[in-house]
Amino acid sequence: MAIITLTTDFGEKDYFAGATRGAIYSELSDVKIVDISHAVSPFNIPEAAYIIQNAYKSFPKGTIHIIGIDSELNPENKHIAVKLDGHYFVCANNGIMSMICSEIAPEQIVEINIHDKIRSSFTVLDVFVQVACHIARGGTLDVIGKNISSIKPIKNITPYVNDDKTQIIGSVIYIDNYGNVVTNIKRHFFERIQKGRRFEITARHYTFKKIYHKYSDIVNFDIPENKRHDEGRRLVVFNSGNFLEIAVYKSNSATVGSASTLLGLGLMDSISIKFIPDPINLEDVDYPQQVHKISDFE
Amino acid sequence: MAIITLTTDFGEKDYFAGATRGAIYSELSDVKIVDISHAVSPFNIPEAAYIIQNAYKSFPKGTIHIIGIDSELNPENKHIAVKLDGHYFVCANNGIMSMICSEIAPEQIVEINIHDKIRSSFTVLDVFVQVACHIARGGTLDVIGKNISSIKPIKNITPYVNDDKTQIIGSVIYIDNYGNVVTNIKRHFFERIQKGRRFEITARHYTFKKIYHKYSDIVNFDIPENKRHDEGRRLVVFNSGNFLEIAVYKSNSATVGSASTLLGLGLMDSISIKFIPDPINLEDVDYPQQVHKISDFE
Amino acid sequence: MAIITLTTDFGEKDYFAGATRGAIYSELSDVKIVDISHAVSPFNIPEAAYIIQNAYKSFPKGTIHIIGIDSELNPENKHIAVKLDGHYFVCANNGIMSMICSEIAPEQIVEINIHDKIRSSFTVLDVFVQVACHIARGGTLDVIGKNISSIKPIKNITPYVNDDKTQIIGSVIYIDNYGNVVTNIKRHFFERIQKGRRFEITARHYTFKKIYHKYSDIVNFDIPENKRHDEGRRLVVFNSGNFLEIAVYKSNSATVGSASTLLGLGLMDSISIKFIPDPINLEDVDYPQQVHKISDFE
Repeated sequence: MAIITLTTDFGEKDYFAGATRGAIYSELSDVKIVDISHAVSPFNIPEAAYIIQNAYKSFPKGTIHIIGIDSELNPENKHIAVKLDGHYFVCANNGIMSMICSEIAPEQIVEINIHDKIRSSFTVLDVFVQVACHIARGGTLDVIGKNISSIKPIKNITPYVNDDKTQIIGSVIYIDNYGNVVTNIKRHFFERIQKGRRFEITARHYTFKKIYHKYSDIVNFDIPENKRHDEGRRLVVFNSGNFLEIAVYKSNSATVGSASTLLGLGLMDSISIKFIPDPINLEDVDYPQQVHKISDFE
Repeated sequence: MAIITLTTDFGEKDYFAGATRGAIYSELSDVKIVDISHAVSPFNIPEAAYIIQNAYKSFPKGTIHIIGIDSELNPENKHIAVKLDGHYFVCANNGIMSMICSEIAPEQIVEINIHDKIRSSFTVLDVFVQVACHIARGGTLDVIGKNISSIKPIKNITPYVNDDKTQIIGSVIYIDNYGNVVTNIKRHFFERIQKGRRFEITARHYTFKKIYHKYSDIVNFDIPENKRHDEGRRLVVFNSGNFLEIAVYKSNSATVGSASTLLGLGLMDSISIKFIPDPINLEDVDYPQQVHKISDFE
Repeated sequence: MAIITLTTDFGEKDYFAGATRGAIYSELSDVKIVDISHAVSPFNIPEAAYIIQNAYKSFPKGTIHIIGIDSELNPENKHIAVKLDGHYFVCANNGIMSMICSEIAPEQIVEINIHDKIRSSFTVLDVFVQVACHIARGGTLDVIGKNISSIKPIKNITPYVNDDKTQIIGSVIYIDNYGNVVTNIKRHFFERIQKGRRFEITARHYTFKKIYHKYSDIVNFDIPENKRHDEGRRLVVFNSGNFLEIAVYKSNSATVGSASTLLGLGLMDSISIKFIPDPINLEDVDYPQQVHKISDFE
């Protein structure tokens, strides 16, 4: 049975998501509809790109992903269908796919050209559902569009590296439900520049010299529980999507605070990583809790 | 396989929606449960009526829609099941169905009378699920209720038209996820009063002389992208449900603002449309961007 | 077809819940995934315990419930699978199951020990999904864990009763979508201490002498509707989960206010119930609207 996922900025309240599910079932009775998110901030393409990039891989090959963000058809916003990594994506050509495509080459991209056959006042419902159901029935992309070779990029999504490779300047691309601050610096990118050097991560006036493997690694379990003060402590991890993330242990934006609220970090804010020029033998270092061989994480 | 949809004010956090899904699967293993919305404002009947009216049509005929808003049984709040347009609706007789029924005549309405057979402390779970599953199994409405001929109306839901038909006074019935302001003025109602005349729409101290076909029609794509300032511009459209809507291009209530936040428009606020008495030949008008033949939209 | 439910603090926006659904479908194509809630407050174990306890019973026996709250594996936070009341629960041993287990004895509890076979950076996705799908395929708990006999308790979850049983001190464990204030005092616990006596419930400086059967019982339907002022009135009920709840009739935290906002009651606040020492014959009492035989509710 085909799986069609939905990632939109429709919100949870309006009739848009419900109507879209209904339209899919009207086309295909034998299909699984799976919500990825309807709570993308309105028109926020980097957020949507981050969410879909991290969610799609968990689905079986052949899954069809509808992404409904800023999808109204106009001369500068065409509709595309992309086959990549064995998955299908149906969305506007507005940058959403560029984050995924920068890591994995698409197998096929078509610009959708079935609009003359559809009377549409609601793009996702009218156009994207038609295309997704066509694919779910085993139809090819060639039937619903013409091949194109490149897609629109997202601006400013790649971190900056200075010429002598002593510094990375990244930026915040996502704040998650725990108020954790996700940057555009991915683990493999970081490691390629790091080359085993020590580092110092700076966000506003906070500095970090270590990247943890998981959140609770900040806790020293040898200390009795009632003598610890770990909740609310700041730390840096690579999150489950392998993005560098500034977190607060057991955070809650509404009560104890979170990395976003406590450190004052918002979308598009800068994060700097400086590498210490002289690599040293990590085995010799006297303060292992402040230095980290990133390869230990693997 | 039967489809049962859920539209409630349960919110996304509480156990109510989850328990309702579980109760349906306990009755019927072979059924599709589809959420329309659980984020209706508590006890807000006009909101629920707007959402269900716009969502139900996308589902296949035969779908059963449970609407759980203000549904506690009491002497003034009976339970009903309605067959209309090939769909079934199970809800309280509190006005929710009057918006749909004012456009399409119901095929059958019954007042549910199975309460003596059910021990209930949670109406949707105990009563509405039983009724919906009865219908899903092919049961008739006559078995679970007695026929009635009319339902409770929603107050103040129809726009006012003055005697000489030069003015419509509507009101805001819904604010959507983008902060767009939806009025109770539907396209066919507007056109019937308009009769091709020019018009002026006023909301607070803002005036509009044009209704756009879609949001990005406000953009002049002949101007280079970096010289345009369209984001944040106000416009009026008929939305995908054919309701007159005051919108802001690429709005976001939390960041750049929205029609609701920027124009200060909330639920139940008034919108006025004045028609210019002397119809003129539209082909002769010198400022076509300010006049609009609504029939162009079709 | 197996049913797997999800109760998490992932929120509705992030990719976590979507990716988890995808991971389940990657393991099992023939399964129903049902959301109970993804809006548990971050790391809030009592909230999650309350939600799952009230939701699980509506599902068919054999349902598998994944609970993803504070689930990162560490020396003090092991993973468990519990069979109880014919249902399966997969979660961390952090107190979540103690509320349910205090009422119904578990049939089996195992501490999950398959972590060496799984590379995990995302517990729910990697570990809990594997365990749930193992159970869904008919696998036994003994294969994925070792039997243990007790689980970690939640602190301060039981109400306090004084020595001469004239007073119960409970606390607020949940605020629902309507702003209703749910306490940890269950109906059967209350009745066992009450023994038919009159009572006085105090929350901050508000006092209640009656527990209603349902919300609209506060309304006197003999008074014409336009002369009533019931919306916004305070009342106490046993809710659909049989917890004592302080409510406001037709409340809405965002507009007219709710029990939580109007009475200033938050999580962990205290509620006191004093029992009047001399039981009196209820039939003789002159003010029946203020006294209540709780047995009338049954």
